[in-house]
Amino acid sequence: MPTDTSSGRVRVHCFSLSIDGFGAGPDQTLEQPLGVGGGTLHEWFFPTRTFRQMTGEDGGSTGVDDAFAVRGFEGVGAWILGRNMFGPIRGDWPDGAWKGWWGDTPPYHCPVFVLTHHARAPLVMEGGTTFHFVTDGIHSALRQAREAAAGKDVRIGGGVATVQQYLRERLIDELHLAIAPTLLGSGERLFAGLDPVQLGYHCVEHVTTPSALHVVLRRGE
Amino acid sequence: MPTDTSSGRVRVHCFSLSIDGFGAGPDQTLEQPLGVGGGTLHEWFFPTRTFRQMTGEDGGSTGVDDAFAVRGFEGVGAWILGRNMFGPIRGDWPDGAWKGWWGDTPPYHCPVFVLTHHARAPLVMEGGTTFHFVTDGIHSALRQAREAAAGKDVRIGGGVATVQQYLRERLIDELHLAIAPTLLGSGERLFAGLDPVQLGYHCVEHVTTPSALHVVLRRGE
Repeated sequence: MPTDTSSGRVRVHCFSLSIDGFGAGPDQTLEQPLGVGGGTLHEWFFPTRTFRQMTGEDGGSTGVDDAFAVRGFEGVGAWILGRNMFGPIRGDWPDGAWKGWWGDTPPYHCPVFVLTHHARAPLVMEGGTTFHFVTDGIHSALRQAREAAAGKDVRIGGGVATVQQYLRERLIDELHLAIAPTLLGSGERLFAGLDPVQLGYHCVEHVTTPSALHVVLRRGE
Repeated sequence: MPTDTSSGRVRVHCFSLSIDGFGAGPDQTLEQPLGVGGGTLHEWFFPTRTFRQMTGEDGGSTGVDDAFAVRGFEGVGAWILGRNMFGPIRGDWPDGAWKGWWGDTPPYHCPVFVLTHHARAPLVMEGGTTFHFVTDGIHSALRQAREAAAGKDVRIGGGVATVQQYLRERLIDELHLAIAPTLLGSGERLFAGLDPVQLGYHCVEHVTTPSALHVVLRRGE
């Protein structure tokens, strides 16, 4: 009997937006993975214990901001990332040197499916993360991620374009957004050309902290 | 010697935006002055003492939300409103019957300049408010409002299209926005086609309350 892969939900977490609606700044580079000014989106996240653990540091805050960060990892059995969230390289992979932004031990600890137009062999990292490169589209990536998650949830990490594609196909069950008190002016707007109400989303939860307005959007309630 | 009218600032206050960036819902009518769903934008404002006083009621909250509401009236000597913020009537004024959404005693208590393409005689209301109808554009309205304010500040009330026009001309010194935990899906987006960073704005203040993320944007700092 095949594993039941239909029960897991598809979730987005810790997705920060600026006041003017951008989920990333323009001009991503190796030095600025979140685009110009994009780092200011995540100022609520950097001091959390969860983020500090991801970067090998002790301490960090354990309040509401951290609770949202923690939720983003709970019950997740596989991830999907857009190519740009995996790295700054465009086009063909020049060699196997680029292994993501996160060092030898990425914070995923499970299978991660990277959307790309350029085939590449799976990349087994330390700590349980394996990067799989999917060249046949978002539906295939989700099918593979669901299967790998084996009943647990699939988290779509980002970036903006990837989340938009899954939103348009009504494939995301829940999104946690963090509205940050910053202006980006340009970059990638999450809701550009998208009507979240028409797509079936409602705001089912909101909490403010000194650093952000956290909202949870859910489909079909 | 003419009155010095250059010292007053031009301010926007209590301008609510949804998570998806809308400052008003679609399809404004007499019954829904803020457009369909637009009322949910202002849920932070309705319980405040300031709002309750505007509607002739006692009580109301006196915390941070109310403090922002209070600031919006302090030091203001004249207002500018778009036609739609004054009323739902489009085209020619059929008669003098429509006197704004606010009853006999509007909450302005000073001269208010209404942008319109259709001339109408000034409308003297109770409590110090006079509505002046300006048919020769936003610059003329601002000139008249500055003169009427006599050194105090000019507040641009809205709606979205009016604020956008003044933003594009770099005529607004300060904006207080309240990001509300709600989705509108469609309507009028404040930052559509506008780059607030390029226009010189920075976020100089932010405070969260259980109901909203309040931010203050200022030009040229």
